[in-house]
This record gives sequence, C-alpha cells and structure tokens, in this order.
Amino acid sequence: MLAEIISIGNEILKGDILNRNATYLGKKLYEKGVAVTWMTSVSDDENMIVQAFNESDKRADLVLVTGGLGPTHDDVTKKAICQGWETTLEPNVEAKEFLLRRLEKQGRTMNVSQEKQTWLPAKGSILVNNYGTASGVFIQGKKARFFFFPGVPHEMQGMVEDHVLPYLKENHPDLVPRKETTLRTIGAPESSLYEKLDGLSWLKNTDVAFLPKIGGVDVIIKHTPESTPAQQEEILHQFRQKIGLHVYSEVAEEEIEETVGKLLVQQKKTLAVAESCTGGLLGHRLTSISGSSLYFQEGVISYSNEAKKRLLEVKEETLDKFGAVSEACALEMAQGVRRLGQTDIGISITGIAGPTGGTKEKPLGLVYIAYSDEEKSLCHSYVFLEPRHIHKQRSSQAALHLLWEQIKDEQK
Amino acid sequence: MLAEIISIGNEILKGDILNRNATYLGKKLYEKGVAVTWMTSVSDDENMIVQAFNESDKRADLVLVTGGLGPTHDDVTKKAICQGWETTLEPNVEAKEFLLRRLEKQGRTMNVSQEKQTWLPAKGSILVNNYGTASGVFIQGKKARFFFFPGVPHEMQGMVEDHVLPYLKENHPDLVPRKETTLRTIGAPESSLYEKLDGLSWLKNTDVAFLPKIGGVDVIIKHTPESTPAQQEEILHQFRQKIGLHVYSEVAEEEIEETVGKLLVQQKKTLAVAESCTGGLLGHRLTSISGSSLYFQEGVISYSNEAKKRLLEVKEETLDKFGAVSEACALEMAQGVRRLGQTDIGISITGIAGPTGGTKEKPLGLVYIAYSDEEKSLCHSYVFLEPRHIHKQRSSQAALHLLWEQIKDEQK
Repeated sequence: MLAEIISIGNEILKGDILNRNATYLGKKLYEKGVAVTWMTSVSDDENMIVQAFNESDKRADLVLVTGGLGPTHDDVTKKAICQGWETTLEPNVEAKEFLLRRLEKQGRTMNVSQEKQTWLPAKGSILVNNYGTASGVFIQGKKARFFFFPGVPHEMQGMVEDHVLPYLKENHPDLVPRKETTLRTIGAPESSLYEKLDGLSWLKNTDVAFLPKIGGVDVIIKHTPESTPAQQEEILHQFRQKIGLHVYSEVAEEEIEETVGKLLVQQKKTLAVAESCTGGLLGHRLTSISGSSLYFQEGVISYSNEAKKRLLEVKEETLDKFGAVSEACALEMAQGVRRLGQTDIGISITGIAGPTGGTKEKPLGLVYIAYSDEEKSLCHSYVFLEPRHIHKQRSSQAALHLLWEQIKDEQK
Repeated sequence: MLAEIISIGNEILKGDILNRNATYLGKKLYEKGVAVTWMTSVSDDENMIVQAFNESDKRADLVLVTGGLGPTHDDVTKKAICQGWETTLEPNVEAKEFLLRRLEKQGRTMNVSQEKQTWLPAKGSILVNNYGTASGVFIQGKKARFFFFPGVPHEMQGMVEDHVLPYLKENHPDLVPRKETTLRTIGAPESSLYEKLDGLSWLKNTDVAFLPKIGGVDVIIKHTPESTPAQQEEILHQFRQKIGLHVYSEVAEEEIEETVGKLLVQQKKTLAVAESCTGGLLGHRLTSISGSSLYFQEGVISYSNEAKKRLLEVKEETLDKFGAVSEACALEMAQGVRRLGQTDIGISITGIAGPTGGTKEKPLGLVYIAYSDEEKSLCHSYVFLEPRHIHKQRSSQAALHLLWEQIKDEQK
C-alpha cells in the first residue's frame, strides 16, 4: 500500500509555518507499516488543489489531506473536492447536530460561518471532529481513498486516531507495524553514549539513530524484518548493559517527569518545589502528568529575594553572604519548601537565566539545583550557556534528573 | 514567475525530521517576490524523483531541489538527473580542484567517496559549495531552470545566497520584495474575526492569511506589489478599526506575555500569580521575558487545598461551600496572592484540566480565572474541552488575556 500526504495552505508555501502535520502523518503511518512515498504542499488555489488530488489519485492507495477546511475565504478545500469529484456542497445534518451539541456545552451559539462549516460535499461522508468545529470528509477517488482533515494540529491528530487507524486495522489487517525501541537517556551527550556503545561495531541487522534533544539523547533502535525476536532481545540487552544507567524510559513519548511521577506514586512520596530562574516551569512539567496531584503538593515561584525569605525562610545572612544564586541559598530553598509543604521531598532551582545578570564570580548561565528529604540535602551546580528559554528548559531537566537519581534506586 | 521546491529523502517521508529546508526556501523566495506554488517531497527512489522533476518542469519556471547529493548509497539525485535529462555522470575538473583546495586547507586528503562527489551530470553545470564537500548542480529543463543543493541546511542556505539570489537579481530585476504585517489577535476565533472584517469583501491588492494558534489567531496582511504605500496604510487602518480590540501586537514573533510585560514596566506595576490547574505555566510564561523580574514578584502553585488555605488564605468555608474550582475560590486566590506578595496585581487560575475530575455541576475543562488590583476584583469562567496540555496552555493564555484587558486601557 502506497500512501501520500497533501498539505493545503499558502502559509506553508510562503514559509510562514513549518509543515509539522506532514511530518506527524509520515511518522504515524510509517510506524503502522504504511510507506508514505510522496508529500505535496499546494497553495490555496482551487485548480492546483484539484490537480494535486488527481496526481495523487493516480499514484497512491491512501491519501491524507490536511488544511483548508476552515470558514474563511482562503479555505477552498471543500470547493476543490466538489470540482474534482463533480459534486456540490450540501447541508450535513450529522455535522450540524454535532457542532450544535459541542457549542451548547461551551454555552455558545452557532454563527453563520460556523454553519457554513457543516456543509459537506454530497458524494463524501463526514469524519466527525471531536476536537473542533470543522468536520472532516472521507471520499473515494478513482483509485485512492481520501481522508480530509482540518490543519489545526491537535484536531488533525485526534481525528487520525479516531478515523485512519481504525480504518487501517479493519481493511489492512496484514500490515506489520515497524518494531523499534526508543531508549530515552539523560545525563550523557551523544558522543559519550556512542563510546560506551563501542562505536556500534558489534551491531547487525539493526539501524540506530541518535536524536539529541534539549533534555537528553534518544537512542532509537530499529530492527530490520530479518532479525528474530531472540536476536532483537539480545541486542536490547547489550544496549541496556552498556548505557542503561542513563536510560530513564523505554517508552518513546515518556518524559522524565512521567517516570519520576510513577516512582513517587509507587513510593507514596510527596513533593514541593521552589523555583527562581525557571519561574514555574518545573511545576508546570510535573503537573503536566495526569494524576500528579497524588504527589505534587505545591510550589513557590520565589522570584524576588523578599519571597525567598518570607515564604521559604531563606536566611537574610545567606543572601547577604552568598547571594541568591548560591549553593547555600538553593539548599535553604529546598529545605524551606519541604517544610512549608510538609512533603517528603523538596526541590529547588536558583540561577541566572540571562541574557543579563552575570558577574565575574557568577557567570551568566550558572544555576544551583538542590534536593532535600528527611535524611539528606544535596546540591549540584551547572553552567548552561544557551539563551534564556533553553536555559530554563535545561535547568528544569537537570532538576528532574537529580530527583530521578535520588529516588530510582529505592525501587530495587 | 512560478517556483517549486522538491525535497528528496526518506527521512522526510518517514517523519524522522521536519522539512525545515522547504520552509526556509519558501520564505526566502516569497520575501524576494517569487511565489512558491508547489512543494514536493519524495523518497530516495530514482524513478519517483524523475517523475517529480518532470511534473515540476511542466508547471514551474524555477525549481529548487534539495537532498540526495551526498556520497552514500541512498543519495540518488544525480543518477535521477542523468535519467531525466538523458545524460551521464562525468568527472568535473572544477569541482575536483575546488574540493582538493578545500580539503588541503583542512589538512585532509581526498577519499574515494569524496571523489565520487566531484562527478557531475554532463549536461549540467556546477554550483560551487563553499560550505561542504558536495557540489550543487544547475541544469535547464524543458521549461524550468533547476538548481540542485545538498540537504545539509547551512550548506543549502549559503548556496542559495551565492547562486539563487544573484540569479534572480540578474535575470528578474523587476521582482518586487513583499511587504507584510502580522496582527497578533486574542479572544476571538477565526470565524468571528472574519465576520468583523466583513468577509474581506472590501479588500483589494492584498492577501490575508488567518493562522489559528492555541492562544489566538494571527492575521497576516500581505500587500501585493500593485498597492501604493498610502493604500497599504489605509488597509492597515481598516483592519485596526475592525478588529483592533483583539490585536495585542503587530510584531510577528511577540507573545502576549511580552506585550503585558511592557505595559507593566511602563505603568510600574508589580504582579503575583496563584496557580492551581496550570501548575506553574503562567509563571513560566511571564518569566520567559527577559527583564520580567522588574514586575514579576512571586507565584504560588497551590495544587492542594491545604496550600490554598495556608498560603493564600482561601477560607475553609469557601472550599466547603463552593469547592476549589469556583468563582469564590478564584477571587480569594487572586486577592490572597496579591496580599502575600504585596503587589499591585494578583492573578489566579483554578480549574479541572482533566482527563479525570469532572462532575455533573463542574464539567471537565471548567476553569475560573480571577484578577485583583487595589480597586477591583473580577472573575471569568471558561470551558476548554481540549486535552490536559492544551487545557493548561489555553488557561494560561486566558489569564494573560484577562490581565491585558485590564491594564491596556491605562495606556491611553
């Protein structure tokens, strides 16, 4: 089965936005064992869109189209469908009722342009959109099957789960999903992992990709169909032996805040955080996990020295003698927030995110991160030279790394 | 002049990487006044690549191709050129001498795979690569002119500056660079902006794109070369009249936390935030702005009811009678954090981010956002039906929106 992706919208061709939708769809289909061989992006021009439909219809079996389903003048996808399939737009009862219910839940009423969105090409059928106001369309071409989705990423992604994956499962049960394992690592750069893996010279029938990200490196092990399950297991075993100390998860999408969250739930421990330079990012990441209220009690964003003293009981003399960006202050913050929240663990971050504020003794990018529990308190320091927004990301990642290091061994 | 972009490489179609090259080229050409109307991405398959060349040659005047010029087995672009143009690869003296000089500078010698890269299609001519080892190729199609570049982003970008821009300047001196304005809006969906703009029926010589994002809609006004500066100013004036109430900035990259930050600095006001369901995201966004310590004092992430009572002095009876997700609680949180931080303004967020925790009276997605200053306190409620991470984004955006609404008019 050959699949193609068509992305519609001037904003893509003018370079206003990256075409993340096409990348998402390519990856999703590849994982399911479907080869995407062609991707097309076209402007909001009805004739060009029809031409793109016709060309894909000649080459492919499955075509996923995104964009141009909204209510404005440049949303011409449905008109192009009508031209290409020689049909007309008609009011769709299901789409209208669905949208009315959705708006009602939000206490809103339907306006004219929203009603326009419930008109669909007569020869197609509706793909319900549980995530927004524009319905999708399914229609059979001369050869290929076409799925049309709005271009809003989370709507499109939800609709792919709701409509395309069930379609593939039902109609192509023979598809073999690709087997790959992602080792999510933290605390070692790509070159160091590569050395620990002996340059991969021992590896057979397997592709390996290193994907460096802000918080660590993903090592993706892609097994070729020739390797047996036993061989695959042996290869994974080797990877775990060589770099396992840095692997916090083998689930591709799992962030370290999720790993840490699971450990805290298992160990029935609670947590409070005190943040200065990260300004709430650590709390945000911890509470991005559903169920985090089981362990995350509270946080203090003590941006001013005043707040550090008043809320966290950081001593005046500590601030005078060592300053707010110091090991002593970080430790008092972690201990202070633990006491404040009466939690098992306190974590703190204090540093200079930049681009201003550095001195000779305390360079831009310096950050102290402290951990405190009933038995011990400890502090690490780092210098992250990246711009402010990356500095905040790396600091929060280092805090989660420290937390993980401290609690992971209690599992064993 | 119509331009197209062809991107070659399995990594794009499998979704391993975002196609940043195509976006870069689209933007670069658009700025110079060249319309890119079609983008194609194809796998490393010789026949498919030839097909893509032929189709673009029929439609376009200028085709930029990236990728597949490297030395490995999957780099088949030059073979595809030979097939498409019925020519052969021949050693290119200029390419070889250039590469030898380049390697010599680095104290290296030429290896076999590097020499292979100096063989070029006989009917084409070399595009010198000052940034890497793979030469580019220029070749005339039946209709279009083709430029081939390696896929390594900084090499391709340098070569566009060296070869494409001078080519355009020399051969198309009549091209007019584009002028565009981005209106960043908040608080109105695309359909409502469109209605307020009377469906744009009054608009001439101008393209308008609506880019919906999680926090609002960007309205991009693109003037065509036919419009005079006076006409352009008049059109902007019309937009400001019709939807100006929703426009927080006319700077393309400016987020609302930056707009709000500037207002707070100008008005010499300070701010404290109390967050429940957003878990620190609002503080994180506010402190993403360099210089935010001038106005951002502190934040409390009061995830537990205990923390709401102890830190923010939310009344026990408020929690008993109305619950933590209520207007009364949100107001007490905003007032409480303002008192705690002794700031001019307090903002609070309390809601049910999901995916669990909804009840009949308080549906999943319900969120209360309150503002408090010396003179007044007020609260808005919303229902955001999106998944947890989007819910947090939209809630923080609604809080920044409320803050902006309250302080923007003091400027006038």
